[in-house]
Amino acid sequence: MFSTRRTLRIEWGDCDPAGIVFYPRYFAMFNHSTELLIEQALGIKKYALNQLYGLGGYPSVRSQARFLLPTRYGDDVEIESTVTKVGRSSFSIEHKLSLDGALAVEGNETRVWAIRDPDRPGGFRAEPMPAEMAARFRATVA
Amino acid sequence: MFSTRRTLRIEWGDCDPAGIVFYPRYFAMFNHSTELLIEQALGIKKYALNQLYGLGGYPSVRSQARFLLPTRYGDDVEIESTVTKVGRSSFSIEHKLSLDGALAVEGNETRVWAIRDPDRPGGFRAEPMPAEMAARFRATVA
Amino acid sequence: MFSTRRTLRIEWGDCDPAGIVFYPRYFAMFNHSTELLIEQALGIKKYALNQLYGLGGYPSVRSQARFLLPTRYGDDVEIESTVTKVGRSSFSIEHKLSLDGALAVEGNETRVWAIRDPDRPGGFRAEPMPAEMAARFRATVA
Amino acid sequence: MFSTRRTLRIEWGDCDPAGIVFYPRYFAMFNHSTELLIEQALGIKKYALNQLYGLGGYPSVRSQARFLLPTRYGDDVEIESTVTKVGRSSFSIEHKLSLDGALAVEGNETRVWAIRDPDRPGGFRAEPMPAEMAARFRATVA
Repeated sequence: MFSTRRTLRIEWGDCDPAGIVFYPRYFAMFNHSTELLIEQALGIKKYALNQLYGLGGYPSVRSQARFLLPTRYGDDVEIESTVTKVGRSSFSIEHKLSLDGALAVEGNETRVWAIRDPDRPGGFRAEPMPAEMAARFRATVA
Repeated sequence: MFSTRRTLRIEWGDCDPAGIVFYPRYFAMFNHSTELLIEQALGIKKYALNQLYGLGGYPSVRSQARFLLPTRYGDDVEIESTVTKVGRSSFSIEHKLSLDGALAVEGNETRVWAIRDPDRPGGFRAEPMPAEMAARFRATVA
Repeated sequence: MFSTRRTLRIEWGDCDPAGIVFYPRYFAMFNHSTELLIEQALGIKKYALNQLYGLGGYPSVRSQARFLLPTRYGDDVEIESTVTKVGRSSFSIEHKLSLDGALAVEGNETRVWAIRDPDRPGGFRAEPMPAEMAARFRATVA
Repeated sequence: MFSTRRTLRIEWGDCDPAGIVFYPRYFAMFNHSTELLIEQALGIKKYALNQLYGLGGYPSVRSQARFLLPTRYGDDVEIESTVTKVGRSSFSIEHKLSLDGALAVEGNETRVWAIRDPDRPGGFRAEPMPAEMAARFRATVA
């Protein structure tokens, strides 16, 4: 399955009064990793993707994380993101955030390929994923 | 078990280019609901709690959410938060965010009562919860 | 000129490792106060406003703040927001955030009434404000 | 004076329903640039600095920005940050965020070298900056 990784500096503004990352920020980090993974898998930026398919995109339907070790401002962490499941209209991604090789946070999320629902303003409707997209998610990184 | 609820206006700044809440923001909303629930259950503000017990507090060890319906800026949503499990040093809280009576987001998180670990700078160590705290979490709202 | 106020609980997630509000969060608080001021002045929610006039809205062209006293999680602060200038297409708003009656943060921002620029994708173009809008901004709260 | 620059990818989660950066996020970007500038000027990470001098650090006392051009998710922007003034206990930094060479946002902030005020819990007190720190801020990048 498709996989990608990036390193990231934990910022002062990511952290709370306990001096460690305010955990909703991990979900924002994972969200950006998902964006980058999809951009790399499909070879197209999200903005162009939205122009092409409409703003629906691929909203999250389920997200979870386990917090094993704290990280704090100034830490340079690594996030490895991997497609773990590809369905007809949904796909799942696993994120592993580690510090100096030790797993600190583990996240999982399920996304659905969606388009705007013309019958429900502001609503979205799941759609079968374009076949090429599914194929690319299933591909291993060269 | 202890339960609390609050209403909340979804802000422009909570939303992403799809016009709906950027989902990490739901975790921030749930986090604040947890803070309020603990403040109400214990009858003491977190700042005073931290002065009393140290900044360890009650970090999250697991958090998850399911996103059923989108909400957008200007929506007045309700979050109902309930203690669902009380262990020796951990407790779980369920959050239900609804819009006009319809469940939009469902969250679950497990927290651990922790103190600063003097042996590991920046680290925390799980501790048995004060007995009164456990008793209050188990109480139903009067 | 039009004026409005609200009270606000400083959240744990608004604060940084120094235990006080991470200052970009003050701008987010001021932004929401501006949204509420405009909603109250015009008697229409921003979502409906955007449906009516397009998503351009009233982007900020200048924003500043002075930080006089720190505030921290658990503090219940008050924000008073006042229209200070109404031009042809721009208007200015002043925000005063106080804690227990003491001024803690003072903000100023200038907004421009804008519509989407069809000639520049993603761009905006300043437009003369609807006359009724200017009139309402100039009104004093009853 | 000391100067530094970095490139940055605008994230989906930085943007609001107008599809452009939610402007408080620019202040968070500038804040991180300031952290990096100070780290590079002093050759010491903020965490170590806080261990050395106490958590007071260098809170912002004034911050402002002008928003000239919108930027949106997927944009790779550049932020150039320069020390513009060094006083006895305060210093000022200017940030220029540009997209494809065009200035999009211009920020200015004044920081004060501060230590915890033992007489006022949660408060800070301005202090003369260590002489070496002032010297480094005045230095040009080699």
